[in-house]
Amino acid sequence: MAPSKESEALGNLFQMFSEQMPQDNNPFLARIVYDQLTTVASEATEVTYEDVKLPGNYRGPAKWVKPLHASKDHVLLFMHGGGYNFGSLTSHRMLCAHLAKASNCVALMVDYRLTPEFPYPAALDDCVAAYKWLLDQGYKAENIVTIGDSCGGGLATTVPLKAMRDGLPRPGAAVAMSPWTDKVGKDSESMKTNVQNDILSTPEGTAMLAKRYCHGGAKLDDPLISPIYADEAETKKLPPHWISCAGCDLLLNDGTRMAEKLKKAGVEVVLQVHEGQQHVMEFMAGTAPESDQSIKDIGQWVQKTVGSRR
Amino acid sequence: MAPSKESEALGNLFQMFSEQMPQDNNPFLARIVYDQLTTVASEATEVTYEDVKLPGNYRGPAKWVKPLHASKDHVLLFMHGGGYNFGSLTSHRMLCAHLAKASNCVALMVDYRLTPEFPYPAALDDCVAAYKWLLDQGYKAENIVTIGDSCGGGLATTVPLKAMRDGLPRPGAAVAMSPWTDKVGKDSESMKTNVQNDILSTPEGTAMLAKRYCHGGAKLDDPLISPIYADEAETKKLPPHWISCAGCDLLLNDGTRMAEKLKKAGVEVVLQVHEGQQHVMEFMAGTAPESDQSIKDIGQWVQKTVGSRR
Repeated sequence: MAPSKESEALGNLFQMFSEQMPQDNNPFLARIVYDQLTTVASEATEVTYEDVKLPGNYRGPAKWVKPLHASKDHVLLFMHGGGYNFGSLTSHRMLCAHLAKASNCVALMVDYRLTPEFPYPAALDDCVAAYKWLLDQGYKAENIVTIGDSCGGGLATTVPLKAMRDGLPRPGAAVAMSPWTDKVGKDSESMKTNVQNDILSTPEGTAMLAKRYCHGGAKLDDPLISPIYADEAETKKLPPHWISCAGCDLLLNDGTRMAEKLKKAGVEVVLQVHEGQQHVMEFMAGTAPESDQSIKDIGQWVQKTVGSRR
Repeated sequence: MAPSKESEALGNLFQMFSEQMPQDNNPFLARIVYDQLTTVASEATEVTYEDVKLPGNYRGPAKWVKPLHASKDHVLLFMHGGGYNFGSLTSHRMLCAHLAKASNCVALMVDYRLTPEFPYPAALDDCVAAYKWLLDQGYKAENIVTIGDSCGGGLATTVPLKAMRDGLPRPGAAVAMSPWTDKVGKDSESMKTNVQNDILSTPEGTAMLAKRYCHGGAKLDDPLISPIYADEAETKKLPPHWISCAGCDLLLNDGTRMAEKLKKAGVEVVLQVHEGQQHVMEFMAGTAPESDQSIKDIGQWVQKTVGSRR
């Protein structure tokens, strides 16, 4: 089936990025251009918000996203994308609200520290600290879902990995939308085959962002940076995963390969590939039928997996 | 009393604007820098949102702002500031939410057309059309409050003026925060005395924005552009006004002179001058005590004036 007319909005926005993104290495301006991602989404109705300061080194306060009728016992730990360099609670607020509503959960959006100011492990540390904070607030680990898009989709897997290494209990589920799981990238065919199809990213830009994250000596193939390189003993301890990929995405095979790896290790995994769609097609929450369907499917799976069903 | 430490955030943001605002006349980048106004506010809790497409030529959908326990019969028609050239539903969402909550009203934020693409009367036409749409939805005129900041504070007065000229009933009240009521500007002493105190604006920049709004032959002293020039017969028909001004603002006397004019014409008017504060000090909603007090006072007055009291 051909992509809907509505779903062209994301590609058009990415095209605009390539025209408007400042070329003078001004991270402030580049970040607020990236924040325009929110313009392809719509408000989720019946959702309230609340700023909350977490203990630690975050960029800014976190945000509670509270659908009016959601389960109070189940929570999405939402980690935005943007190559660890971009993205904010502004760029992803509406997407997160639609996901929380569909999952019948509240959500906590984490404003983790970004590169180039803060390379690895700042982002991971902030997200694991937020996970620990949720446990301290009384949320049961099995009722927490790590969820994110792009680099945040990588964090959806590395946060459980790191949490378990730290002796914390495993979260109940992970949702990774267009996840970036392999910072080396040479084994992902789509890094070559989708060069013409991906409107947002280039292999060079992706490599540059990976380098920024690893600045200071961290290894591109560290499993806490690229979960595709986790060994089987650790992989099989991971929570059930939902992985959503976009057909035109350079990172398409970051998602499909991660799904295969999890399956091989015996982890429950659902993989959805959205043909003809751009990176993180879920951004068009409330405005494109494919995005709404993906969000609905994710929500149903979360409800079933962690028991947040109404 | 000296301004609070917290209230310095607005001046610091305005200082950042002067450093980061693109100098190459790129309206897209300049507008998204301006949207960072929202970063000095906090989320208002217990408020939901909903996009709504109004019939007409708006820039984008309008936004319903719905405090959970607000009166369903009373509504703020919220018109953002930004010199008719900047500002959006993003820049003003949190401010509007705090005002709606304090007033115990729902609010409709209008995404009216901006200059330079759309000079006068586009912005006024869009806002009057939104007022008419609210009447068509069944809201009683006396339960509608026109409210805005800066140029939107001017619209808070010119929308009732134009509506009455069009034969529509008068709204119940008007709230003008740091309103821009005089596009000529030569009779406002603060346009000279506050040149050093106002961190955001310059007389030249203000004159440039006025010129953009009047592009195509509209007169700076047209009462529908500068309500300070309305005649007494028309002025005395205006609804009760709350006018809030900031002591360091170039537009300080736009507000104080408008208050005097209304009072002289027999219109009920309350004037508050916030000494030591920058333009639209209410932006620091939820983060600075002076802003919270102003918003609380506005809300109490609205509740009393239009009867939205709980």
